[in-house]
Amino acid sequence: MTLVHRFAGNPLDRADAERRDDGWLAAAEQDPASRFLPFYNLDVLLAGGATLGWTPASTVRWLDVDVPPVFLGLADGIPHFALDISELEQPARDLGLENGWRFQDCRMAAMAMPADETGIVAQARAQLSWHGSHRFCSQCGARTEQRKGGHVRHCPQCNAEHFPRTDPVAIMLIHDDGRCLLGQPKGPLVRMGMYSALAGFIDQGESIEEAVRREVREEAGIEVGEVRYHSSQPWPFPSSLMIGCLGRATSTEIRIDDAEMADVRWFTRDEVSAALNEENPDLKVPGSVAIAHHLIKSWVNGEAGG
Amino acid sequence: MTLVHRFAGNPLDRADAERRDDGWLAAAEQDPASRFLPFYNLDVLLAGGATLGWTPASTVRWLDVDVPPVFLGLADGIPHFALDISELEQPARDLGLENGWRFQDCRMAAMAMPADETGIVAQARAQLSWHGSHRFCSQCGARTEQRKGGHVRHCPQCNAEHFPRTDPVAIMLIHDDGRCLLGQPKGPLVRMGMYSALAGFIDQGESIEEAVRREVREEAGIEVGEVRYHSSQPWPFPSSLMIGCLGRATSTEIRIDDAEMADVRWFTRDEVSAALNEENPDLKVPGSVAIAHHLIKSWVNGEAGG
Repeated sequence: MTLVHRFAGNPLDRADAERRDDGWLAAAEQDPASRFLPFYNLDVLLAGGATLGWTPASTVRWLDVDVPPVFLGLADGIPHFALDISELEQPARDLGLENGWRFQDCRMAAMAMPADETGIVAQARAQLSWHGSHRFCSQCGARTEQRKGGHVRHCPQCNAEHFPRTDPVAIMLIHDDGRCLLGQPKGPLVRMGMYSALAGFIDQGESIEEAVRREVREEAGIEVGEVRYHSSQPWPFPSSLMIGCLGRATSTEIRIDDAEMADVRWFTRDEVSAALNEENPDLKVPGSVAIAHHLIKSWVNGEAGG
Repeated sequence: MTLVHRFAGNPLDRADAERRDDGWLAAAEQDPASRFLPFYNLDVLLAGGATLGWTPASTVRWLDVDVPPVFLGLADGIPHFALDISELEQPARDLGLENGWRFQDCRMAAMAMPADETGIVAQARAQLSWHGSHRFCSQCGARTEQRKGGHVRHCPQCNAEHFPRTDPVAIMLIHDDGRCLLGQPKGPLVRMGMYSALAGFIDQGESIEEAVRREVREEAGIEVGEVRYHSSQPWPFPSSLMIGCLGRATSTEIRIDDAEMADVRWFTRDEVSAALNEENPDLKVPGSVAIAHHLIKSWVNGEAGG
């Protein structure tokens, strides 16, 4: 069966038909049974443990927030919404948080919470982030309005409709004769001493396989032949779809892109296998929250066929 | 080997390093050897036959066009650009078109032109379409400026950087015991009497496989189990990445989404096979320009394993 990554596995029914019905949506927002998930500067509200801090309509109704909630979907017929409360100066006080309820960075939160809740976090964070950076019409500059529970923003001036954006990213483990190619982009991974699978945004007019080959050529100077799709993962920072592939190198000499990469190297199966188990003092690789971990593991386990 | 679809196979080197160098780009725009591909209202200029109407710098220099060209990449070291000349009132006169040079709809053009040229059309059309609808900052409403040869738009007011957008779309042939599921969305396919693979935009916080299952459930009421990736195709109308999959149904009774679909039906292998060869008077399916054709063909040929 397909591997279900963190940030996937969302159990909510996105309720496409109900979402198109303005009357239904308005009633759902007022429904005392409806549940709201507040976000503050894109950090998610957690309840005492590490579960989602669902909040009733009776609480959010009194918050002094100007932005409408975003409809996420239904669970057991109950409407679920996300709400951006970043406007509030004292969110903890206004929500009356106690007993360990708190806002947390979504990446951190996703490591500890039940798997299916991470899918809700991904959907909610990506949507709220998009609305927050798309208050104006890219076509004419006027202020836009949220419609269909957040599924679209409408421009009252030029009538354009803008839809939430998802950026496809190719992420690939490239292998060659018992070795695999890992890189360290400039930035946070350098401080952590971590290496990961190469990755990059898929360009306009490019297939997934072409993007894999171009990115590896640009970042590492390595040519890639056969490319195989592995699995995909939503990654809400801010709104990517990670498309994981395994690819076979057809050249071996690395030529690093100095502008983007701090280092790129070939690693042996033993080195990488130890790193996956956190038993390699010289190499760290991403943890199981990231698709990179599973691409590497798949190759270590011989599933890449090479 | 991977199937290379129409609109993929772009032979240009996107020249990531050169693109970041403003001085290099400015010189390339003036270089007499540089080649420019004009688009008028997103229709591409074709030369006498059905090949791309590359135009020299000496011609485009005198056009009264306010938007900068978009850098596509290099071929044999020669810079290639796309140029939106929709501002012109008489583009054919201003360009001095003769000998059958003309503007054509990109979908029509792609059916006749050499395969690798369709990849250039995909890149150019998607980029120009994006720039045309993103002249303003979605974050603050100010006018934005093209940078890095069109790879980014910069907002001088709030300093936001906006990158071209590619929308991932799941397109899937669902099969069950010798039959496959084809649908007719409301719109042009109804007039053409054509059925195609079901498809839909991948939502925020969704893996490819989850999007496949959700879309088929929404449009046809059919449940899907195993999903296998097949291939991908850039589709520049305006800027999608079609992610083609084969999926096995786990239910059989169709429940049509009346709002979006005119019809959805199960078809036998014989019916579909004849349609692929344009020998079925009762069923038309998309031609080989579309990934749907190849998904259907793959299933007819038994490659879906069912």
